[in-house]
Amino acid sequence: MMVILGIDPGSRVTGYGIIRRHQGKLSYIASGCIRLTDKPLAPRLDKIFVGVGELIAQFKPECLAIEQVFLARNPDSALKLGHARGAAMIAATQASLSVSEYSARQIKQAVVGTGGADKTQVQHMVKHLLGLSGTPQADAADALAVALCHAHSEQNLIKLAGQARKTVRGRLR
Amino acid sequence: MMVILGIDPGSRVTGYGIIRRHQGKLSYIASGCIRLTDKPLAPRLDKIFVGVGELIAQFKPECLAIEQVFLARNPDSALKLGHARGAAMIAATQASLSVSEYSARQIKQAVVGTGGADKTQVQHMVKHLLGLSGTPQADAADALAVALCHAHSEQNLIKLAGQARKTVRGRLR
Repeated sequence: MMVILGIDPGSRVTGYGIIRRHQGKLSYIASGCIRLTDKPLAPRLDKIFVGVGELIAQFKPECLAIEQVFLARNPDSALKLGHARGAAMIAATQASLSVSEYSARQIKQAVVGTGGADKTQVQHMVKHLLGLSGTPQADAADALAVALCHAHSEQNLIKLAGQARKTVRGRLR
Repeated sequence: MMVILGIDPGSRVTGYGIIRRHQGKLSYIASGCIRLTDKPLAPRLDKIFVGVGELIAQFKPECLAIEQVFLARNPDSALKLGHARGAAMIAATQASLSVSEYSARQIKQAVVGTGGADKTQVQHMVKHLLGLSGTPQADAADALAVALCHAHSEQNLIKLAGQARKTVRGRLR
């Protein structure tokens, strides 16, 4: 069994999504948002750090999955995003979690099957893959999507490792 | 007595400078750099967080002073800078330090006396104001400069408060 914490960091809202993979099956555990008020920057970042730390303490995930940012749109939003990402990642490393980063393209590819999928398609597939009755809030859906992407990558690695073992065994016979 | 920790965050090198203000006099305590190796982002940020935390534990500053970024040059460097700033600021808030941000202009104004001063002038004045025999490394000098700026601002506030008290007392007589 593996518990994955997906985080969609932002300077106003940080989405989170927690899923479990057990015997190849994926299931939903929790999702939601850490909302930041108009306090100065330092206490806002602290709220992300403490909030992510509490999620880790409560749900005991093995890893944190987070979207990798390649091309930020503008310097100001990039700076704000950097602060929020840093806060979430340090909460993970401080709790000895591994941190995996995935590009937007990898996430869409893993969840929808095509790297060019739009937000609505991602949200629809998150709902479908986890068998949710309602549609999660946008930031929470994005966090669940990156967690699903990580589960998918790990699963592929396990499959590849399995195939490699079979190949080696085949050769040994 | 007040101990101030100045931080000049960066994605490769984070400079730090620690000064003390005692009875209106400023003195140098320590300065240096936290150098980040080519590890993935998460452990690099963790190194800043842990490094700043260790400085706080060792020198017991009351506050962290850090340069405020208004206009980042490009999105990629802004994102990297944001990560590093976030890591340093969380280390401070987690140790219950107050965090003060100052613009580059405020720092130059406080240290050199003019907001348009260049890097060399700032380094020269840092050396002069703290009576250092050698010139500190560039990142350490910038960190000492922001710490000096904070000491200066606090000193002005105390002076203003003193004047306000005198005015009130004068009025009461």
